[in-house]
Amino acid sequence: MIYAEEIYAGIEQVRAKSPLVHNITNFVVMNNTANALLAMGASPVMAHAWEEVEDMVAIASALVINMGTLSDEWVKSMLKAGRKAKETNTPIVFDPVGVGATPYRTEVAQKIIQECKPDIIRGNASEIMALNHSNIKTKGVDSTETGDTALASAKELAVNTHSVVVISGATDFITDGKNVAKVSNGAPIMTKVTGMGCTATAVVGAFAGVEKDMFKAAIMGMVCMGICGEIANVKSAGPGSIPENFLNQLYLIDKLNIESNLKLEYESL
Amino acid sequence: MIYAEEIYAGIEQVRAKSPLVHNITNFVVMNNTANALLAMGASPVMAHAWEEVEDMVAIASALVINMGTLSDEWVKSMLKAGRKAKETNTPIVFDPVGVGATPYRTEVAQKIIQECKPDIIRGNASEIMALNHSNIKTKGVDSTETGDTALASAKELAVNTHSVVVISGATDFITDGKNVAKVSNGAPIMTKVTGMGCTATAVVGAFAGVEKDMFKAAIMGMVCMGICGEIANVKSAGPGSIPENFLNQLYLIDKLNIESNLKLEYESL
Amino acid sequence: MIYAEEIYAGIEQVRAKSPLVHNITNFVVMNNTANALLAMGASPVMAHAWEEVEDMVAIASALVINMGTLSDEWVKSMLKAGRKAKETNTPIVFDPVGVGATPYRTEVAQKIIQECKPDIIRGNASEIMALNHSNIKTKGVDSTETGDTALASAKELAVNTHSVVVISGATDFITDGKNVAKVSNGAPIMTKVTGMGCTATAVVGAFAGVEKDMFKAAIMGMVCMGICGEIANVKSAGPGSIPENFLNQLYLIDKLNIESNLKLEYESL
Repeated sequence: MIYAEEIYAGIEQVRAKSPLVHNITNFVVMNNTANALLAMGASPVMAHAWEEVEDMVAIASALVINMGTLSDEWVKSMLKAGRKAKETNTPIVFDPVGVGATPYRTEVAQKIIQECKPDIIRGNASEIMALNHSNIKTKGVDSTETGDTALASAKELAVNTHSVVVISGATDFITDGKNVAKVSNGAPIMTKVTGMGCTATAVVGAFAGVEKDMFKAAIMGMVCMGICGEIANVKSAGPGSIPENFLNQLYLIDKLNIESNLKLEYESL
Repeated sequence: MIYAEEIYAGIEQVRAKSPLVHNITNFVVMNNTANALLAMGASPVMAHAWEEVEDMVAIASALVINMGTLSDEWVKSMLKAGRKAKETNTPIVFDPVGVGATPYRTEVAQKIIQECKPDIIRGNASEIMALNHSNIKTKGVDSTETGDTALASAKELAVNTHSVVVISGATDFITDGKNVAKVSNGAPIMTKVTGMGCTATAVVGAFAGVEKDMFKAAIMGMVCMGICGEIANVKSAGPGSIPENFLNQLYLIDKLNIESNLKLEYESL
Repeated sequence: MIYAEEIYAGIEQVRAKSPLVHNITNFVVMNNTANALLAMGASPVMAHAWEEVEDMVAIASALVINMGTLSDEWVKSMLKAGRKAKETNTPIVFDPVGVGATPYRTEVAQKIIQECKPDIIRGNASEIMALNHSNIKTKGVDSTETGDTALASAKELAVNTHSVVVISGATDFITDGKNVAKVSNGAPIMTKVTGMGCTATAVVGAFAGVEKDMFKAAIMGMVCMGICGEIANVKSAGPGSIPENFLNQLYLIDKLNIESNLKLEYESL
């Protein structure tokens, strides 16, 4: 269990070490996630070529796999990168965007989990339920379920895949199958900005690059997202202003921001 | 013929139903168009994999095909998705970006029109003329012609393809071959922001997902774009500020905005 | 050697002629670079299909090749476009993003230089050193070296490739192998925004589309980037605000901005 102080220490680690985060991600959010990683002090690289993903993983501190705009060629590279990351002990954070919306997405997500064994899986409630049961229909990439409903699935998925599972939503749930952390930071308007979920995955990836305990890294990431989103919201006239204010806040976030805004609870199982 | 009240009712429909808009679009604008759809209250999904486009179309309320950064693999998916949309009666909005600039673009645009039979085609004046005559040279993706010049082509194209054709520009023209609507909202600075045309196409797609009359859906979309662009312009120091203010306005747009700004005329043929 | 007046004349040329700049660039920055080119008054087009790159080069005033998110198919198109540009005497600006980070990137960059003979090569210090020696390890896409260290490599590379080489950094160095220009404009926060380097390459491309002297075109581009970045920085609370303010400044830049901010020096060899 970590609290404000250790979370802020994680942020300082990212700023000090500037971990190289290798992203194989979707076309929609590449710009946002690269900017979020830079604002945090991490060093993003986007690389998907079959010929180079292993070499890039080899120098990276974390690998983020996001299947938002997947295609066969990209999936091959994701699998190759993921297998390499297992060899090099590089943490893998997986974002199963839209899993359940089409059979293809479901199949690819399962394959990635089986072959790459991600350390952290982050999705919305529908996605986590679809990943666990394969019988929930998601509507495109937006969630139709709430985190509370999905928590049992998340725990099961965490146990079955030996990973930390994150359900993001109004309240984020982070579980390793035994422990559950709930982060209630954030603002509803974040759902009106594309790629905030994908950004959360990348931000978690940055923490996974400096923090060995994956449960802690996931909490750090989700707290950071939530608090920065919350502060950005206060300064924003609408969703169009969120990216700017969110990135500024991610760059400026300090200990006091965390101490005075943190809404983090733990649940014993 | 529709006026302010019915246009606003369309906006409320998008907000209430949150139509899933399936986009197969270009790399440059994916982020903008996803954000515009979210700001309106629609639910965007970007998916181009051959393996999943039919399944995605099957759950979508509208399909947007945009050939801005086309390649053979993507074109195959566009055609497959478009054929499926015809089967499922899902409206198709087509954006023939840069048609006429290269023979390849012209060929692909013609193939998409023939095989997918889009319900709405939106382009700038050069593109619409190139689509109809195939003997106008466009300069890259920016128009070298005006809407007035292109109107005859648009009418002919609408009749020949049984579609609603939209010419966007300083004045937008929307025609089903018989009726013509002119929307004079908007601001010149919108041409200095990449992807505003593509965003218009996606916004029209959202309306096509809730409004059965394609002529009306196209008018709703172009009015919405124009008025939001106009209000955004007043708040912007330059083109860099447009995306933020435009998205905020798309999120906030209300009946009064439409009533007090609408510049919509009809022309009988 | 050029100074404020001639630099501003270059900006006016871009605004007057609106050169079509054909970009084969990476997924992360396409939106930014298109917006930067539009804000300057240039006309960007992004096109990478094997079937059309030659036709697009044929109507373009400059070709920008950026290997940020490369893959085999794209590299084939880059080479084809580059060879065509040599035939049509269209200036080529090359951005070897991340060269040195993986063997694949190094191999591709060398191939592009050999086959396309770019007129201008722009990279950060690590990339220029890697290009010249092939024995410097870059960390992802961010530089680990300074411009001063890389200058000797840049000169050698310029001589060997008959090109103008630009090292961007806190101070930018521009050399044709004989002359060296140093631009000390800019702000450190620009390194916290993704794609500012890629944008510099595209901006240089716009100048190369109107100015025959490639050394001058490169200086114009780097001065424009630096001064606009510097002014944007003053108006920005963090990196999230930079893109908006930078684009606005690129749109608004006037003679006085250049005269009162220019930090340009020349070095005789």
